[in-house]
Amino acid sequence: MALIQKLVICGVGLIGGSFALALRRAGAVKRIVGVGRSPESLARAVARGVIDEAVTDWRSALDGADLVLLAMPVGQMDAVMAAMAPHLRPGTVVTDAGSTKRDVIEAVYRHLNAHIAHVVPAHPIAGAEKSGVEAAFASLYDGRKVVVTPLPENEPAAILRVREAWEACGAVIHEMPPQDHDRVFAAVSHLPHLLAFGLVHDLAGRANAEQLFGFAASGFRDFTRIAGSHPEMWRDICIANRQAVLAELDQYLAELAYLRALLLSGDGERLEQLFAEARRARNAWAEQYGAAAPTAE
Amino acid sequence: MALIQKLVICGVGLIGGSFALALRRAGAVKRIVGVGRSPESLARAVARGVIDEAVTDWRSALDGADLVLLAMPVGQMDAVMAAMAPHLRPGTVVTDAGSTKRDVIEAVYRHLNAHIAHVVPAHPIAGAEKSGVEAAFASLYDGRKVVVTPLPENEPAAILRVREAWEACGAVIHEMPPQDHDRVFAAVSHLPHLLAFGLVHDLAGRANAEQLFGFAASGFRDFTRIAGSHPEMWRDICIANRQAVLAELDQYLAELAYLRALLLSGDGERLEQLFAEARRARNAWAEQYGAAAPTAE
Repeated sequence: MALIQKLVICGVGLIGGSFALALRRAGAVKRIVGVGRSPESLARAVARGVIDEAVTDWRSALDGADLVLLAMPVGQMDAVMAAMAPHLRPGTVVTDAGSTKRDVIEAVYRHLNAHIAHVVPAHPIAGAEKSGVEAAFASLYDGRKVVVTPLPENEPAAILRVREAWEACGAVIHEMPPQDHDRVFAAVSHLPHLLAFGLVHDLAGRANAEQLFGFAASGFRDFTRIAGSHPEMWRDICIANRQAVLAELDQYLAELAYLRALLLSGDGERLEQLFAEARRARNAWAEQYGAAAPTAE
Repeated sequence: MALIQKLVICGVGLIGGSFALALRRAGAVKRIVGVGRSPESLARAVARGVIDEAVTDWRSALDGADLVLLAMPVGQMDAVMAAMAPHLRPGTVVTDAGSTKRDVIEAVYRHLNAHIAHVVPAHPIAGAEKSGVEAAFASLYDGRKVVVTPLPENEPAAILRVREAWEACGAVIHEMPPQDHDRVFAAVSHLPHLLAFGLVHDLAGRANAEQLFGFAASGFRDFTRIAGSHPEMWRDICIANRQAVLAELDQYLAELAYLRALLLSGDGERLEQLFAEARRARNAWAEQYGAAAPTAE
């Protein structure tokens, strides 16, 4: 792939910072400029050598940029695109790392329509317990999936640029229509997060919360690990993808209604059958994907 | 503590087998006899040195026994107690390792009423991914909690016998009324298992199940780990404790109805607040208990 002369990363946290470090590791980038809402965080990114320079205005940031990665929580996409639009040069390729795609694409049409040929949405399926630039590391994307959801208006060369950048980070590229992306991740990621947040919130509000937490064991620990996720990021994801998340939640509520009926009627046979089917599917998944499952999403 | 001359374990799997190995490690037991429904499994337990002898009839098993541990799935408690009752000698102390307590205690009153002074229900909060005697190991209970739920009729010496046996296994003893036990574990263990089984079952039945599982990441992996649990054991637990599990499920459904309303109205502020509260509670729990949380329950 052609060397990236100037990479701009907006939101230099775990995701954006690791993209920078991975491209450096691959020798694929010459100069990296960071943009963001927290000057302190950007200064730490410079100090750690993740970015070469922190820039506060979009005009100078975008001057001569050949690739821009938007790696903020998706709730900020609209405002950021509006701010950068006037300064975006023809030919600069823009991509993002948002966990939802349809809302990001709406913002693209709204603000970056003039540059649509070069705006290629994507979503790296990777992450870690910790957030922030301190948590960034070069191998975060090794063997991880990146879902690219190209627009019909995209130039093939722009799509290729984005694919090659992620490949240089060690990732495996998948393409998918944005609506499929949002439905798939509502089911396997957004809903589980909502369910885990909900359970912990429910228990934490009980009069005997101390006692409950005192006897919680490793099943609870693993089930609720994702309830330790970043509240703002997950607020943005749930709001951005709420149509698909609501559809998944309603389907899950139907499943729970069925389970409730089996409990009420004491139907052990059907309960065991359902548990056995779930166990089979879960073990088959764990064998095929479990070992390679990213640390977080 | 006084040496256990003859220990009888009914159900020599992970729990019963580890109890045997832990007591041997402590030098607290002279002779261990195993009883169970699978002669092959008992033969493997003898071959591995977990038990000294496999016995098929309760009369000879209970002859001279000073302690009996019932470590089968709770659905078998009633039948096993009925079978052993005629051969139980005065003074033999009986305990169990069932994950639910009220149903076990009902069976105790039904079948072992004549021996009630020496029947002390308990529940070790420990386990592992794998089940069966092959998975048993001596240190399973090191630092783990064992909840003892004594009956008003219990002789103090019998309670002490059970406490001392578990302490010899390395466990930390808690006492609790049985109804409290069943409510606490419905909330922090039984409901999460039901929710995880339900989610995987729901997704596995979709037309695009392959695609969904293909993009599931580590959040999904941890959230659904307990959906790999033993179907028969969890059927028995859900049925045995269904009153408390239904109460927990209904409270959780109310939480989900609230989350659904926040999603529908796009109330990002309240969503973020709820997520932040859950995250705080979850992180506080993880700091206090997480590292010491048993491998499973």
